Amino acid sequence: MEKLIESNDQEDAIYFHRKPLPETCIDFSSSEGKQVFSEALASGYMECYFKLSSQFRTQDELNYCGLTSLVMALNALDVDPGRLWKAPWRWYHETMLDCCIPLETAQKEGVNMAQLYCLAKSNGLHPHAVNGKDLTLDRLRQEVKHVTKREDVVFIANYGRSMLGQTGDGHFSPIAGYHENRDLVLILDTARYKYPPHWVSLEALLDGMKDIDLNTGKPRGYIKLTVANDQTSPPPPPTLSELQMGSKMDDSLSQLLTKDPVLLRILLEIMEMKLQSSYN
Amino acid sequence: MEKLIESNDQEDAIYFHRKPLPETCIDFSSSEGKQVFSEALASGYMECYFKLSSQFRTQDELNYCGLTSLVMALNALDVDPGRLWKAPWRWYHETMLDCCIPLETAQKEGVNMAQLYCLAKSNGLHPHAVNGKDLTLDRLRQEVKHVTKREDVVFIANYGRSMLGQTGDGHFSPIAGYHENRDLVLILDTARYKYPPHWVSLEALLDGMKDIDLNTGKPRGYIKLTVANDQTSPPPPPTLSELQMGSKMDDSLSQLLTKDPVLLRILLEIMEMKLQSSYN
Repeated sequence: MEKLIESNDQEDAIYFHRKPLPETCIDFSSSEGKQVFSEALASGYMECYFKLSSQFRTQDELNYCGLTSLVMALNALDVDPGRLWKAPWRWYHETMLDCCIPLETAQKEGVNMAQLYCLAKSNGLHPHAVNGKDLTLDRLRQEVKHVTKREDVVFIANYGRSMLGQTGDGHFSPIAGYHENRDLVLILDTARYKYPPHWVSLEALLDGMKDIDLNTGKPRGYIKLTVANDQTSPPPPPTLSELQMGSKMDDSLSQLLTKDPVLLRILLEIMEMKLQSSYN
Repeated sequence: MEKLIESNDQEDAIYFHRKPLPETCIDFSSSEGKQVFSEALASGYMECYFKLSSQFRTQDELNYCGLTSLVMALNALDVDPGRLWKAPWRWYHETMLDCCIPLETAQKEGVNMAQLYCLAKSNGLHPHAVNGKDLTLDRLRQEVKHVTKREDVVFIANYGRSMLGQTGDGHFSPIAGYHENRDLVLILDTARYKYPPHWVSLEALLDGMKDIDLNTGKPRGYIKLTVANDQTSPPPPPTLSELQMGSKMDDSLSQLLTKDPVLLRILLEIMEMKLQSSYN
């Protein structure tokens, strides 16, 4: 837990315009960060970076780090949610991850490893979770080297922030690159109102993964995500003719609309879409 | 305006899981895109990339391209909004750009160049706007070469999408790099549910900037943003002691809280903050 008041003096400000990164972390956009990035890019351990950074986003809620990391993964891996975000677009947003755990609970308490696993599985991904206690530095390094050379895998780390010298408690964020000589990983921190993306030593990340999540009593770790092989195509969105209201609507569709609130919502969104003039 | 139905056949799907980029644009995460990026990085015309990509976000509303581009600029240029996003963080979000034009109107109709200029100026930036009709390819190239070598300037392009071979009408997005030999610019498209970030020829972008905005009757163009020299420090956020409820609250503060709904909201957020256990 981050303290509301950073000293005993109540006169101190309790609001923050970001936090300074600790010395253990290298700001992605600093001179050193740019140098590390260039070298890592040349080494081939930044293949995962392009699709992930294309989908880098800020968590909309203070406890959404897990959900936002998963949204980044789903959009980076080009998963079709098979349902609308805003008409006419199908697109993943945190608010669409309302299964496994009520969204309201996730907003208040965040999610744990098991819940994130469930959410990933429910949304067309094949998750592979590893508990921090089973990790050695060598094993983690091999894994990071493997995933950063690919663009069809997303690696989400779950770690205690204090082991990285940062304020705050448990956190989820994707790893987007690796610098071999300096043994550094690039964290695309979803809490961008707090810390910018940064490089940190693999060793510190491992310590963070071995941190015990006090809510579950278990160590943290990581989840590796790929698109599930057995993923069926998303249900085709309804066509306009299917949804046309009026004399042509057949009985079975009419019954569906009456019984299925999701389909009804889609219909309402189409109606709304008709009123809109552009979709940029 | 993008057509709801892409052909005359009503059986065609009217929903989209993204759009394929036209051949005139190179996907940032394609093999060619990565190659272009690496070369541009080595040339020095990607200095603006790091802070901007660190703040790359998807527009929350279909007409928020202008607002989202400005939010990216404000956060990339490290402007302190001097007010809360979510306690305890001060941070820019589109919903905080509710001046110059009502947010509701921006959501329905988007913003134009003049409105974006006003919004930038009202939020501590020094905007410099250039109308597309005043641009030549040489002048635009000089400007792009200048801004992409810096990290203290954000260049937001306003262009007609059709001139880039894309579907849709007018659009705003930041430029995050330049490839000199191929005369390409990197667009961090804020409509990521539609197109990924992409490289496009400077010439096509210029054509897009000369496009007439039918709402204003004027050509589009670009806005260059730096932090205003005369920017005063943001008003200090209230301290806990100032906001403590109870016997110590003085009369003037009590009156303020009664009269000022913003301050009241801040107070409520503090109360909420007290109930939360972590701020990650």
